Amino acid sequence: MDIAEIAARLRALEDREAIRALIAAYGPLADAGDSAGLAALWAEDGSYGVGGMGTVKGHVAIAGLIDGPTHRALMANGCAHLLGPVAIELDGDRATARGHSVVFRHSDGRFEAFRVSANRWDLVRTADGWRVSHRENAVLDGNEVARALLAQPAICPPSMV
Amino acid sequence: MDIAEIAARLRALEDREAIRALIAAYGPLADAGDSAGLAALWAEDGSYGVGGMGTVKGHVAIAGLIDGPTHRALMANGCAHLLGPVAIELDGDRATARGHSVVFRHSDGRFEAFRVSANRWDLVRTADGWRVSHRENAVLDGNEVARALLAQPAICPPSMV
Amino acid sequence: MDIAEIAARLRALEDREAIRALIAAYGPLADAGDSAGLAALWAEDGSYGVGGMGTVKGHVAIAGLIDGPTHRALMANGCAHLLGPVAIELDGDRATARGHSVVFRHSDGRFEAFRVSANRWDLVRTADGWRVSHRENAVLDGNEVARALLAQPAICPPSMV
Repeated sequence: MDIAEIAARLRALEDREAIRALIAAYGPLADAGDSAGLAALWAEDGSYGVGGMGTVKGHVAIAGLIDGPTHRALMANGCAHLLGPVAIELDGDRATARGHSVVFRHSDGRFEAFRVSANRWDLVRTADGWRVSHRENAVLDGNEVARALLAQPAICPPSMV
Repeated sequence: MDIAEIAARLRALEDREAIRALIAAYGPLADAGDSAGLAALWAEDGSYGVGGMGTVKGHVAIAGLIDGPTHRALMANGCAHLLGPVAIELDGDRATARGHSVVFRHSDGRFEAFRVSANRWDLVRTADGWRVSHRENAVLDGNEVARALLAQPAICPPSMV
Repeated sequence: MDIAEIAARLRALEDREAIRALIAAYGPLADAGDSAGLAALWAEDGSYGVGGMGTVKGHVAIAGLIDGPTHRALMANGCAHLLGPVAIELDGDRATARGHSVVFRHSDGRFEAFRVSANRWDLVRTADGWRVSHRENAVLDGNEVARALLAQPAICPPSMV
């Protein structure tokens, strides 16, 4: 094992760790109402397709989702944006991650899982580190679009030897 | 620190990452309905004990769980197989991982956590990388069997210095 | 890249892995009823602020939460302490991790997400490895205290290049 191999293996582990950290930050930032911090998870020209609610692009528009009345009402009543672990595929300076998200809503003293979704995150390595280039989200209500977001290339887990 | 130590430490990190990736792929593959991809997470002779529904063995039988009428009906109505992070213990070419799984079911426009389970994953290093040798699952409905799946050797977290 | 750099990068990855492993062990230990194993995740003088139920300190008191009548009744009926992935910030021999927890309770043949919380974990490197110095938990029922636990320094994800 030479230095070049060590560097490549460290890099692959760090890439996966950075992508995991990026996505793990989403839920806490959303529930803390930190719209600027949340938008900064995306690349400058990054976009977010929110299932059934259209696609927004750029930091200002993404921050607007968090500052808007729908999200603020959720926060006021109590909510949790729980994201599960993601299945990550690295491809040089690009990556894809797939996983579930659950939005719990608090009302009348109870919690309800009112939005359970599929997510595909497209990621890009920038000068500042990994960022989201696009997140596509769709509610898992039986539609084929949501299921397709979770479909993985056959090679995915076997390639992590 | 010599090359042998570096190699051992890299290997341990990669092993844990590969096991995490393997298990993180389960939910997306299940909800995408990719029965062959899901079965390929298991070793050829791997088995899956589904709490209250018996044990199946081998790729064909495991794929059959995903292609069967119960799972297809779930998918048609909308479902999410959310798995939490796993507590991993490495032991050379074997490993164990423990964690929760939640199956959300969509019906009448609402989501219900209709199956909340304990899981113990036994894993083995194969020529193609880490694979599941056995997954044992049991619903956390108060029975002792389910709780026992989550019990960990005392050494587990302390050993990760 | 020299040996010192390799060592530092390996160490950072191992630190994050150890912290993830520590927190991933919490839910399984809680649901298995292993009070001593769970308490051992904390440093000797560690503490746990359970939202709305005060703060306990030290292994004996933390184990008491698991051995007490409230938790034992939950276990007898069926429960799952599902914790999501955590957003980790390392700072030398200290670290912070933020994430959600959901307690599912089984009753009348159904599961209910009856406690959905924010968590901030403060961690410390000890002679035996990483341990929890304090966990602060608060139900996400709309109160500002819970949201504040999830607020992150702006630098968090960008620092993971």
